[in-house]
Amino acid sequence: MHILIIGAGGMVGRKLTEALVRQGHVGGNEISALTLADIVAPTAPATGIATTRLASDMSLPGEAEKLVASRPDLIFHLAAIVSGEAEADFDKGYRINMDGTRALLEAIRAEGRKGPYKPKLVFTSSIAVFGAPFPDAIGDEFFNTPLTSYGTQKTICELLITDYSRKGFVDGISVRFPTITVRPGKPNAAASGFFSNILREPLVGIEAVLPVSRDVRHWFASPRAGVGFLLHAAELDLTRMGWRRALTLPGLSATVGEEIEALRRVAGDKAVALIREEHDPKIVAMVDGWPKNFDARRAESLGFTAEKTFDEIIRAHIEDELGGRIG
Amino acid sequence: MHILIIGAGGMVGRKLTEALVRQGHVGGNEISALTLADIVAPTAPATGIATTRLASDMSLPGEAEKLVASRPDLIFHLAAIVSGEAEADFDKGYRINMDGTRALLEAIRAEGRKGPYKPKLVFTSSIAVFGAPFPDAIGDEFFNTPLTSYGTQKTICELLITDYSRKGFVDGISVRFPTITVRPGKPNAAASGFFSNILREPLVGIEAVLPVSRDVRHWFASPRAGVGFLLHAAELDLTRMGWRRALTLPGLSATVGEEIEALRRVAGDKAVALIREEHDPKIVAMVDGWPKNFDARRAESLGFTAEKTFDEIIRAHIEDELGGRIG
Repeated sequence: MHILIIGAGGMVGRKLTEALVRQGHVGGNEISALTLADIVAPTAPATGIATTRLASDMSLPGEAEKLVASRPDLIFHLAAIVSGEAEADFDKGYRINMDGTRALLEAIRAEGRKGPYKPKLVFTSSIAVFGAPFPDAIGDEFFNTPLTSYGTQKTICELLITDYSRKGFVDGISVRFPTITVRPGKPNAAASGFFSNILREPLVGIEAVLPVSRDVRHWFASPRAGVGFLLHAAELDLTRMGWRRALTLPGLSATVGEEIEALRRVAGDKAVALIREEHDPKIVAMVDGWPKNFDARRAESLGFTAEKTFDEIIRAHIEDELGGRIG
Repeated sequence: MHILIIGAGGMVGRKLTEALVRQGHVGGNEISALTLADIVAPTAPATGIATTRLASDMSLPGEAEKLVASRPDLIFHLAAIVSGEAEADFDKGYRINMDGTRALLEAIRAEGRKGPYKPKLVFTSSIAVFGAPFPDAIGDEFFNTPLTSYGTQKTICELLITDYSRKGFVDGISVRFPTITVRPGKPNAAASGFFSNILREPLVGIEAVLPVSRDVRHWFASPRAGVGFLLHAAELDLTRMGWRRALTLPGLSATVGEEIEALRRVAGDKAVALIREEHDPKIVAMVDGWPKNFDARRAESLGFTAEKTFDEIIRAHIEDELGGRIG
């Protein structure tokens, strides 16, 4: 089985690559080749699997065709610019987040015209496809009214992937990620970054800024759960989904206050004292339009799972990023 | 006020043009100029209003820019290829129904960069943005899971129009038309044509084929109501909609059997006897995925109205198309 990961250089992409290399197979099929693509050629982990590293911007003419020319059996499409950047640069957002995906779908379709080819495609969508006002818990049949260009682009990609699947050009699924927390490494341009910052930084003795009030509720899953979502999607028989190929994933609905209390239980008052509250009206306003809670029973019935407490999320971070120890 | 109608040559476009010319104003603003565009230059009704006729395919480079170069204040975008054709010709469907709309939005945005410009845009969407299975009545917050490429393209246009509106480039609304019945003239490539055929043809003494069973339920409005939708949308203060700019319009939920009984009441057994039942498994299968009933209370609260009985729909046809007499 040949696997292509587009956006392999990102945080989730790197963790997914490591997981694939570690397990060596997907759904009983041995991984024979791995192609890792991103704007900058991603680093490859040490492995016996034949690995190709590619630098590619899929939204540019001819690039998507190059990515699928080797006819990968399974494609993970994780590439996107984040919400803050897509909102600030309208043209770039549509080019990368929408035209790039469409180019990939067209390249797959063109390969299929040369000879039978229908790869499985796992696309990371986002809860940004939803916009306030919301019911208490957003159900699987709630409508998509994104309040950002990023959310609009993700919704359009979901629609395209479903239609290309229905027409038999690809076998696609779009999985709407909760906000991945705790993100390791440095903050990125995502406005949601503070949800991770207020855990990650205090856990290693560094101060972090909380720009919203503690009663803000949001929807979370760990990076470990995120990789689990992708692997499960890759193994899932998608005919079980009919032509409703976009799926809200399970997650944890919690307030920032609950997040902080979990930090206190795991790392003590000393860690919590490093969180400095400094409200940012711009971020407060954005967060106000974000989803707070879901009833993701369809994904649960299809076997997707996520953490049930913030303690679990924090412990996953300590195990996966800090060698099991708190600094 | 300068009004541009894109798709002015189609059935609804012609009726809209006539209505605008007849009333001479929109929302208290006198109509000073009218631009009528379609793939083939539309015919213009006799009027004192300065009228320009244009042949244009908006999906081709430079064409959308030409359409908005004269900076119309109000744009009706009715242009599309129908569901049957979009399903049969995948590339043409995406080019006309999706890329064309995007080109229009980009041309408007480009005009706005030259100097302040934010026209009102009324876009005809469709109940094809929904796909089975459905609840008994589809509410205003039900999700879009189209089962055709046409429905996918309409949904994407809705999303784009909302995002371009939110960003301040245009002031747009997407109105999801019920199936317009009775369509005058000849059958077109729409698979839904039989809903009209079984009324229009018998009313003038001609046989018509019914390809589905009489218990098929669907969602209807007359061409007269359709024009009313567009005029009401043009006058509506869209800030009342927030950033939920796509709207399911009111209509009549009725079975084919109820449609036929209305024909019997209006035109007698003789007309009904001209309907020949000849089931077409392909059409039966398509219709099975179409919406049957809506709870369109949001549109109703915004002042949109449609017929409440099929008798009204048939009488509107007799008045508007047959000079008030049954043949």
